[in-house]
Amino acid sequence: MKLYGFWRSLATFRVRIALNLKGIAFDEVSVDLMQGEQRGEAYRQVNSQAMLPALDMGDGPALFQSLAILEYLDETYPTPALLPSKPRDRARVRGLALIAVCEAHPLVVPRVREYLEKDLHLAEPVRAEWLRHWMDSASAALELRLASDPETGRFCHGDVPGIADICAVAHVAGSGLFGCDLTPYPMLRRVVAECLTIEAFASAHPLRQPGAPAHVAGGRS
Amino acid sequence: MKLYGFWRSLATFRVRIALNLKGIAFDEVSVDLMQGEQRGEAYRQVNSQAMLPALDMGDGPALFQSLAILEYLDETYPTPALLPSKPRDRARVRGLALIAVCEAHPLVVPRVREYLEKDLHLAEPVRAEWLRHWMDSASAALELRLASDPETGRFCHGDVPGIADICAVAHVAGSGLFGCDLTPYPMLRRVVAECLTIEAFASAHPLRQPGAPAHVAGGRS
Repeated sequence: MKLYGFWRSLATFRVRIALNLKGIAFDEVSVDLMQGEQRGEAYRQVNSQAMLPALDMGDGPALFQSLAILEYLDETYPTPALLPSKPRDRARVRGLALIAVCEAHPLVVPRVREYLEKDLHLAEPVRAEWLRHWMDSASAALELRLASDPETGRFCHGDVPGIADICAVAHVAGSGLFGCDLTPYPMLRRVVAECLTIEAFASAHPLRQPGAPAHVAGGRS
Repeated sequence: MKLYGFWRSLATFRVRIALNLKGIAFDEVSVDLMQGEQRGEAYRQVNSQAMLPALDMGDGPALFQSLAILEYLDETYPTPALLPSKPRDRARVRGLALIAVCEAHPLVVPRVREYLEKDLHLAEPVRAEWLRHWMDSASAALELRLASDPETGRFCHGDVPGIADICAVAHVAGSGLFGCDLTPYPMLRRVVAECLTIEAFASAHPLRQPGAPAHVAGGRS
């Protein structure tokens, strides 16, 4: 099994955690986002959308879109489960995951950062503020849910880590890379800290991957 | 059952189609996005994230995030199914849905349009180009998949409409609202046209909801 990813990619981080939690062995192929390698012909043969990650299971075309991959892994390697069993609980977990995956991350991915710089010619501080604004908005939305919903436990939903935790951890790591202040989100920080005590989460972290710098400017991750 | 939505909201459109396909009766409560009603205290009691849609099933807190709601409806009202049965097929359908939901829509929602105007002070033509750029990028990604994957049938995946079709139809309607040129995406247009021959899709369309204008400037939807 081959995971096409990049140390810094938050979407790759999500899949890496899931593979670790499930105990699935995989090789990671680095596709350098900073060099635009994802747009090269070689990677387009793997994923025509030219985005990371992709998961090649060896039995057909590579799977694409990180959340679809997480669901696939949960369906094909059911233990440990990354979603609870009751539909209403599953809806809450997926909803939390989507707050991070759908509301914040799409606004901070490389192609959007490039558009802000090269097409809109925005100055660096304005772009940095954009990144923090959308990451913080999702952090606030997650915090509200985690702090007010009785289903929140040791993790986002009860005492077993799952898809929402995976996405929350990647979101908080990204917030760190972008220099966000996470002080206003104590529940989110607590859940993420709890996750990072688990080696499946910790060893998947961007800053622990080959190619990652020893320190990231402004990084609180 | 109460669907909190707005005629123009593409995420509400998705849930409306799913409810129609499943034959589930519901009342829609209009929350006026153009007046910012979603940020008012009344709606925040329904969905603390202040986003549409939310689905109140009458047996607990309202469900949030449209894709999570679609999965919930498919789990609790299994007929007709909105996802195929095999994990690999489900992964493709979810992946296609996420291209529209996660790569394009988050960049064109009201709060982002407001930020472009009020925080970045971008001129109207620059903002219009932004909207079209991201909608078109996702259209191109969907077109590539639909045109090259053997699984594409009458609909996005085989001959039964599902979650990918729901998201593709909403995406194309949004592209119409933003004046995108869909000429380069014939497979996407064909699948969407096929969907819109089904009343469950057609009657859920933004322009057929109470409050919608008779015509939308530049609309090709």
